[in-house]
Amino acid sequence: MSSLSDAIAKAGNPVDMLRNSAIGMYVYPVVAPEFTNWRDEQRAWRESAVLFDQSHHMDELIVEGPDAEAFLAHVGINGFANFDLARAKHFVPVTPAGHVIGDMIIFREREDKFILVGRAPTANWTKFQAAIGSWKVRLIHDPRSDSRPDGERVLRTHYRFQIQGPDAPKIFEVMNGGPVPDIKFFHVDWINIGSKKVQALRHGMSGAPGLEVWGPYKDKAYIQSVIMESAEKAGVNLVRCGSRAYSTNTLESGWIPSPLPGIYTGDGMMQEYRDYLGADAYEAVGSIGGSYVSDNIADYYVNPFELGYGFYIGWKKDDFIGKDALAKMKDGPNRKKVTFEWNKDDVLKVIASGFEDGTPYKWIDFPQPNYASSSADMVMQGDKMVGMSMFNGYSFNERCMLSLGVVDESVQEGDVLTMKWGEPDDTGKTSTETHKQAEIRVRVSPTPYSREAREGYAADSWRAKG
Amino acid sequence: MSSLSDAIAKAGNPVDMLRNSAIGMYVYPVVAPEFTNWRDEQRAWRESAVLFDQSHHMDELIVEGPDAEAFLAHVGINGFANFDLARAKHFVPVTPAGHVIGDMIIFREREDKFILVGRAPTANWTKFQAAIGSWKVRLIHDPRSDSRPDGERVLRTHYRFQIQGPDAPKIFEVMNGGPVPDIKFFHVDWINIGSKKVQALRHGMSGAPGLEVWGPYKDKAYIQSVIMESAEKAGVNLVRCGSRAYSTNTLESGWIPSPLPGIYTGDGMMQEYRDYLGADAYEAVGSIGGSYVSDNIADYYVNPFELGYGFYIGWKKDDFIGKDALAKMKDGPNRKKVTFEWNKDDVLKVIASGFEDGTPYKWIDFPQPNYASSSADMVMQGDKMVGMSMFNGYSFNERCMLSLGVVDESVQEGDVLTMKWGEPDDTGKTSTETHKQAEIRVRVSPTPYSREAREGYAADSWRAKG
Repeated sequence: MSSLSDAIAKAGNPVDMLRNSAIGMYVYPVVAPEFTNWRDEQRAWRESAVLFDQSHHMDELIVEGPDAEAFLAHVGINGFANFDLARAKHFVPVTPAGHVIGDMIIFREREDKFILVGRAPTANWTKFQAAIGSWKVRLIHDPRSDSRPDGERVLRTHYRFQIQGPDAPKIFEVMNGGPVPDIKFFHVDWINIGSKKVQALRHGMSGAPGLEVWGPYKDKAYIQSVIMESAEKAGVNLVRCGSRAYSTNTLESGWIPSPLPGIYTGDGMMQEYRDYLGADAYEAVGSIGGSYVSDNIADYYVNPFELGYGFYIGWKKDDFIGKDALAKMKDGPNRKKVTFEWNKDDVLKVIASGFEDGTPYKWIDFPQPNYASSSADMVMQGDKMVGMSMFNGYSFNERCMLSLGVVDESVQEGDVLTMKWGEPDDTGKTSTETHKQAEIRVRVSPTPYSREAREGYAADSWRAKG
Repeated sequence: MSSLSDAIAKAGNPVDMLRNSAIGMYVYPVVAPEFTNWRDEQRAWRESAVLFDQSHHMDELIVEGPDAEAFLAHVGINGFANFDLARAKHFVPVTPAGHVIGDMIIFREREDKFILVGRAPTANWTKFQAAIGSWKVRLIHDPRSDSRPDGERVLRTHYRFQIQGPDAPKIFEVMNGGPVPDIKFFHVDWINIGSKKVQALRHGMSGAPGLEVWGPYKDKAYIQSVIMESAEKAGVNLVRCGSRAYSTNTLESGWIPSPLPGIYTGDGMMQEYRDYLGADAYEAVGSIGGSYVSDNIADYYVNPFELGYGFYIGWKKDDFIGKDALAKMKDGPNRKKVTFEWNKDDVLKVIASGFEDGTPYKWIDFPQPNYASSSADMVMQGDKMVGMSMFNGYSFNERCMLSLGVVDESVQEGDVLTMKWGEPDDTGKTSTETHKQAEIRVRVSPTPYSREAREGYAADSWRAKG
């Protein structure tokens, strides 16, 4: 058995295969679980400043050569017209049927050299497109670090840090040895960190400007020291963020990291892709978790409009993979991305079952209860499934459980829906204990999450709706 | 500032120093947080079999030379009369005042060579005794692995595995290629693991025989493979235990891993020891956490009788450090070791505060809420402090929060006491968020924990007593 196709054939159905994956938790590897404690680490990105070490959890794909731009414009849905050297983009490829494969941040390092950073599916698909096309491109793939290095050394091509939070800008000037260039959001420029010149991407959380910096991995310890010393000189409480808090930052910023790649269906090029992918690829060994179980794997897919990526589709490009399909999807109906705010009493009911005999509800592990590479929990309005919860976690800043997902167009902000929490059956997934299902009321809130939704409604609306 | 004495002088009081340590969590390093999920990993040691990787979290001290036995018999309280090559012991040193310094497991590898394995304080004290005495001994100290190796390689002198649980014996025969020798509890013999001959200590949890095996660290990957393959051949579900579940196993077996070493007081040799210890030693940078705050650090100490170690004191030895003091302590009054079973409703009240605005109660992090190297939570009977909770955690097997500690002799099994959870003030500890104190009712239960205590009382006794 050597390809994804073989693996699917053996399992009979890709849903069965992925729901029974024994790969375990999708972890944020190598970085320590906590440097201080995960509550204060979450608080830091809201109240002072936080240092994210992003060196280990993402694949990196370097695409270079005379056709690099044309090739990537063909693979991704994004408009490339304004893609100059000072800019980064959120690169999204879809299948010919218009289903999202994944996403990576793409940086343009030279006219003919791009770096893509993110989960494996986009890197794998991009490599495949290079393999079957005749583009003049060279690709170098540096996969994410081992999930359980067990004391062995881990090396990457690049280190990657983010400095975020309201006090972050105070650090930059000290670090740079003078005022930093005024970099626009998702633009790139060069700054100094001590004696090194590094590239910096202007990023941002909570409205305050943040920076992502990267460079050769061998410089990592030096760069980190200079950043920490600069924070101290600037009088900023810069908190290093461990792997437990890290993944929850997206709940407040509203990005869904884990859509299931829409590559398990389709003939022609899609069949060829499944033959090309190894039986050890993310797409073959990753897992699906959650209460939503459908025989049809396409029911787990999402399209770019549903994830809020419609506005940067490059319609003016002559062609790109999926263009025709997206043109048809454009006017809907499409689901929309929302934040689900979990009902406190229902969450506590689930937790309480861990103190009772018998089969408990699915354990809510704090701050990150996801138990699969891709999650799909059913969100119901009465007996009708109206949405899917796709990535969850606890926010100490908001003092509540939140999740990100998609809902039907008919669902309105403020609506109280019911999420089914936990799986209907025992699967081969090693990441979850035997459990029974619970119902958790969830209130539909905007993405990025805003507390106004919660506070704008009558205090007893939970009861009224529940 | 180079010694513990200097550090104490600077802080003014060792309690202030340790309560404000910024060292962070006392972690179980290098080993992955979870291999499957921590609930099933806990369940495995009760229901099937578990593989503990103990290669990283303990110091190792090799003591060899013609005086090794005499030296160690002088340092530890243990009787050494029956200490032949086939035996291991629970080695406990105390101060001249009779306070516990720590404990290590001690193995006799040769007539003149011993290996000690455990937390740093006992290793440090043993090295000091060798330094100030004129024993003909050679010591090699291999400190525990880095708490946050951050991708760097970690090497030890020895690997160390334990295989525990009711199905463990089925694995041994396959692993050994034939019946294993009938090793008595805490005795040692040689067995085969694949092509290697390794030493095995007969250990045990939950009444079933378990084995601890060790050897050169370079053999680790091979040994682990053979163990896992042997389990598969034996048809046993051998679950690798990650660092999150690992530390909670002691709640069910009843050993307190973290008494504060009683070395901060005393003149003469004790003052000399504090001058000898570096300002970077465990004793200087470790932390005290919990609701119990006393200006007098000696209030945190325990003696061997309180921890249940009285029965193996080597009274027949001519002399050992602390013998006179222990002789005086022997007849009490001494506190006794117990298990505290935390009241479910009170635990849920604490958890619920994480979903409310304002300052929450101290977060109970599952499965291991300890937030210091040594914990001391006040246990009250009315207004009177009658005990100290010293090591806590959640047991999925028992479906409850448990802690180990000591109580006054007057306290009886079944008594419902009140534990103060959380600290009265903000300290410099980075391992805890700002919080308020809670009261959690705890029921006094035997050590090792037995559920009978819980089930033997009327269901409403919580209410009756609370």
